[in-house]
Order: sequence, then C-alpha cells, then structure tokens
Amino acid sequence: MDVVKAAIPHRQPSIDRLVELASSDMSGVDAIIRGRMQSPVSVIPALADHIIDAGGKRLRPLLAVVAARLAGARGDSSLKLAAAVEFIHTATLLHDDVVDGSRLRRGKVAAHLIWGAPSSVLVGDFLFARAFELMVETGSMRAMDILARASRVIAEGEVLQLTRAHDLGLSQATYLEIISAKTAELFAAAAEAGAVAGGASAAQCAALRAYGLNLGLAFQLADDALDYGGVTETLGKNAGDDFREGKATLPLLLAIARTGPREVDFWERAIGRKEQTDADFRRARELIVGAGALEATLDLAAEYAENAKAALAVFPGNEWRHGLESLADFSVSRRA
Amino acid sequence: MDVVKAAIPHRQPSIDRLVELASSDMSGVDAIIRGRMQSPVSVIPALADHIIDAGGKRLRPLLAVVAARLAGARGDSSLKLAAAVEFIHTATLLHDDVVDGSRLRRGKVAAHLIWGAPSSVLVGDFLFARAFELMVETGSMRAMDILARASRVIAEGEVLQLTRAHDLGLSQATYLEIISAKTAELFAAAAEAGAVAGGASAAQCAALRAYGLNLGLAFQLADDALDYGGVTETLGKNAGDDFREGKATLPLLLAIARTGPREVDFWERAIGRKEQTDADFRRARELIVGAGALEATLDLAAEYAENAKAALAVFPGNEWRHGLESLADFSVSRRA
Repeated sequence: MDVVKAAIPHRQPSIDRLVELASSDMSGVDAIIRGRMQSPVSVIPALADHIIDAGGKRLRPLLAVVAARLAGARGDSSLKLAAAVEFIHTATLLHDDVVDGSRLRRGKVAAHLIWGAPSSVLVGDFLFARAFELMVETGSMRAMDILARASRVIAEGEVLQLTRAHDLGLSQATYLEIISAKTAELFAAAAEAGAVAGGASAAQCAALRAYGLNLGLAFQLADDALDYGGVTETLGKNAGDDFREGKATLPLLLAIARTGPREVDFWERAIGRKEQTDADFRRARELIVGAGALEATLDLAAEYAENAKAALAVFPGNEWRHGLESLADFSVSRRA
Repeated sequence: MDVVKAAIPHRQPSIDRLVELASSDMSGVDAIIRGRMQSPVSVIPALADHIIDAGGKRLRPLLAVVAARLAGARGDSSLKLAAAVEFIHTATLLHDDVVDGSRLRRGKVAAHLIWGAPSSVLVGDFLFARAFELMVETGSMRAMDILARASRVIAEGEVLQLTRAHDLGLSQATYLEIISAKTAELFAAAAEAGAVAGGASAAQCAALRAYGLNLGLAFQLADDALDYGGVTETLGKNAGDDFREGKATLPLLLAIARTGPREVDFWERAIGRKEQTDADFRRARELIVGAGALEATLDLAAEYAENAKAALAVFPGNEWRHGLESLADFSVSRRA
C-alpha cells in the first residue's frame, strides 16, 4: 500500500468539499452582501461592486459560517456576521490600495484609479459602517465586541506596517506582530464570531479563535513567499510587487540577515533607496532562494497551519472539522 | 420695561451657562477620549492628539451628555457614548481633509500634511473602530444601532457631496440632503443616543433626535454663510475656503440662481472651471450679499434653530432644556 501511495503524484490539498458543504450558507452570505452594498448614492454600489465582483476567495466569511456550523448552528445565525466580516475586509482593501498606491487588486484595476482616492476612502467608510449595522441586526453584543476590537487591531497593524515598511532591520518578531494584526486578527475574529453565533462553548470559541489566528498567519506567510515565486518557480501574476514596493516581508528579512555584509549594498540600494533595475528582482529571488529564506518562510507557514489544525482537537471529527483542516493545508499550498 | 429692554445692546447668545452645567460630564468625556486614543503604535496617539488637541467646540459630545441629563440620567451612562461620538466625528474630519486636500483644520496644519495621507486614513479607521469598542462597553444595542446608522449615512453624504461638489445647478433640496447626511445626522444621533443612555421615553428620544437634526442643519447653514464673511462683514479667519474650493454651498447656489444669465460667465469661470483671480472672492461676496443670498441662508438657519427649540416642548422648562435652547441660538449667531 505504501508503495502505491508513494507512486501517486502529490495531490494539491483541495477545499472543494468544504466549499460544497458551505455552498448554501455562502449563497445566503452573497445575497446579503449584494443587498447591503446598495445605496441611493450610485457611486457606492458601482465601486463596491467593482471590488466585490472581482472575486476574491471569500475565505473570511467562509470561516465564519463553517465555524458556526462546527459549533452546532442550525439556523442562519452566522450569515449576517459573515457578510459583515467581508465588508470589513473589503473596506480595509480599499483603504490599503489608496495607502499603498497599488495599481491592481484581484487582477483588476484598483478602484481608486477609476473613481479616485477620495471615493475609495469614503466607500471604505460606508462598508465599514454597514458592517456594524449588520452586526446590530444579529443582536449579538459579543460578536460586535469581537469585530470592533479586530477592526481596531487591524488599523493598528496597518499603521505599524506603514511606519516600518521599508525597515531592513525589522525583526522577525515585529514582522509577525504586523501580520498578526493586519491579517490574522480578522481570520481569528471571523472564526470566533462565527462560533459565538453558532452557540459554541467558551472552550470552543477559544479553539476556533486560535484556529483562525494560526490560519491567518499561515495564509499571510504563504502569500509573502508567493510574491517571490514560490518554491515551484511558477511565478504568480503579481509576483515581485512586494519587492518593487520595498516591503520588508519575511523572505526578504531572512535573506538580508543570512547574506550578511556581502550583499548589504544591493539590499540598501534596491530596498532601502528603492533604486531598482529590471534585473534586480531576479537577483533578489536568487539570493532569497539561495539563503533558504523562501523555504524557511514556507516551513513557518506550515507550522502555523499545523497549529491551526491542532486547535480543532476539541471538536468531534465531522465533515466541518475536516473541512477546516483541509483549509489549513490549502492555505500553505496555494500557487495563486 | 419694553423700552428699557430695547435700549439694551443686542447680546450675543451665549452657551457659557450650558458649558458650566455640563463641565463635570465633559471632563469625564475628555478623560475617556485621552485614554482611548492611546495605542502602542506611537503615530496613532501623536496624530490623534494633534487633531483632538486643536480644540474644536466638542458640540457633538456636549449634545450627547446634555440630552442624557435632560432625559433624567443620574449616572455616567452617556460619557462613553459621547466620547464615541467625538471619535466618529474626528475620524470623518481626518478622512475629509484627505479627500478635500485641506491645508488647515481648526487653525492648525492638517494632519495629513504632517504625517501623510496614508496615516490620516488609517488613524481615522482606528478612531472609528475605537468608537465602536466604546459603544460595546456601554452595552446599549440601541445606541449602537443609532450610531452605526449615522456613520453609514455620513459616508453616503460625503460621497454625494464629492460627486456633486462643483455642480452649479445643484438644487436647494439636494444641498439640504447633503448637509443633512454629512453634518446634521451626527448631531441627531448624538442627541438620540444620549437620550437612550439617559433612559428617555420613545417620545423624548424622538424629540431629542429632531432637536439634533435641526440644530445640525442650522449649524451647517450658518457655517456656510460664515465662509462668505457673515452679514457683519467681519471675515472669519478661513473665510473664502469654500469659494476657492469651488464648493456649491447654499449662499453660492442662491446667488447663482438670483443673478441669472447676467453673471453666468463669472460663476462658470470662478467655480465651474476654478480659474480664480485674487479679486474674485470679493466680487462673489458682493454678488452674494447683493442678491440677498447670505441673508436668505441665515434666515433658513434661524428657522431650523427655531424648529430645534420647538422640538424640546415635550420636556419641562429646566436648566438643561434652557441650555439646549441657548445652543440653538448660539449655532446661528456665531462669528467664528
């Protein structure tokens, strides 16, 4: 048997089964999103539709509805919360793209390049406020608490990243603090709020929060690795964006630390002063791969994914739990 | 007696007595504001302190605590809500200044010119989220509902203004719709949420909401008139800002309508195309005063101030009610 297994080509972890399980809930979430992004002020639904329609994986609302089901939810109690989570996420994307001056989002032209930065800022504010209106409708003060706190922590993480973005001496601890706040916190809050909506016990809420936090860290680390092309050398469409923006992500930080004084001039010029030639990204990639920095980043991501799965031990081994386990594996194996 | 009264020089309406009555509550609000704008990410308190310390009249939190007292509040139930209202207001100011590219706020250099637009956007997000955290602590889902809705309406008003800002054909109705949403809604929500915190009846909540809405309209109309120097010809420090930005406010809209085809070239050039010479503001002011547009704007403001006072009829004639009446008079008489 083992020999046969070894001969089977390595299969990509898939979340197809999870997506199928949650499809009815996610249709409900989608309907709420569509309904609640409407406004008599026509720029608002036009701009919101542009970014929401661009797809995105909707991992965060998925997490909320699956956490609720795993906790035993029978009704639709988590759907409005899940939509609120997606609105908060979309609001942060709109503001991020203005802050970073990004030109692309989910493969489409960034909204601020079409409608202008002012509209992107204000429609972000609209979606953020709408998220809180939706939460009020659920009547859960605990869920409100979780998501208000998460929204504040995300803003703190964004400001911290902004002030330290190009700091080549950023420690791994500070980097993890930044991605904890700006990415993992919303995954944690989505899972915890979903658990609350599903009527979970305190221990189950804590477990799902821990799952979400670790999943979010794994997801962001994999994302940062992907920007340098992943270990497969299959470059993603937007690979190199972090490098060109001079963003101090873990693959870069590790490579800088590991190549030491030998390459300090290169890093100082290309990242510190952002004076880059066309060949620099290729060179940075070679140094990062050569220093084992990409592998180390993906190893750390895999560790967080394992932590995420381990946090689910308090739950029975049903299809919802298996779905979340597959999501953890998927988060560190994706190629785009 | 009437003769004596008539001989007394016209006194500016004053809110000194109201400010004194509410001083203990407002000290409590100030302590909450100072405490909750803190963050380990040092840019956040620095930037927040800059705009909050610049003063401002704190009319909105004042409205919340006074509404609570008028409704019979005995404890401190409204203070956190009042601080939340000021945080929402401050967040909108930070975003507005980025959106409008304003250079001054409350007589100080606008925050985005010191810390950059990205920090202003993100610290605004922080304060907005912090406002919702404070509301969660009050435990009032009704107050949360009122302020979440208000935040969404404000964003809609801002976007509407953004898309119609330079439209010389803007109707008075649309103009009033914009200032209702972007300004008066938060006054209404502050008063209503304060009433809820004070344990007001449904009729009292509705009355205080109506008071706040009318006060907000009066306040904004007076503000728009003040930008053209007020009837006293005493120019405020920032007079002319709306004109230079080509903002379609009521004094301008009325003057354009009333001067008709005779001045259409002037308005088209100075506002439509924003090609202004130094002498244009003086000319615009003369046309606006000559057309009676300033007086008409202030008359409308006075009407809303009267509506605001009339809404208070459901309350006994105590010092809190008199304080709110003086606030309505003050809002249409201020010179800066």
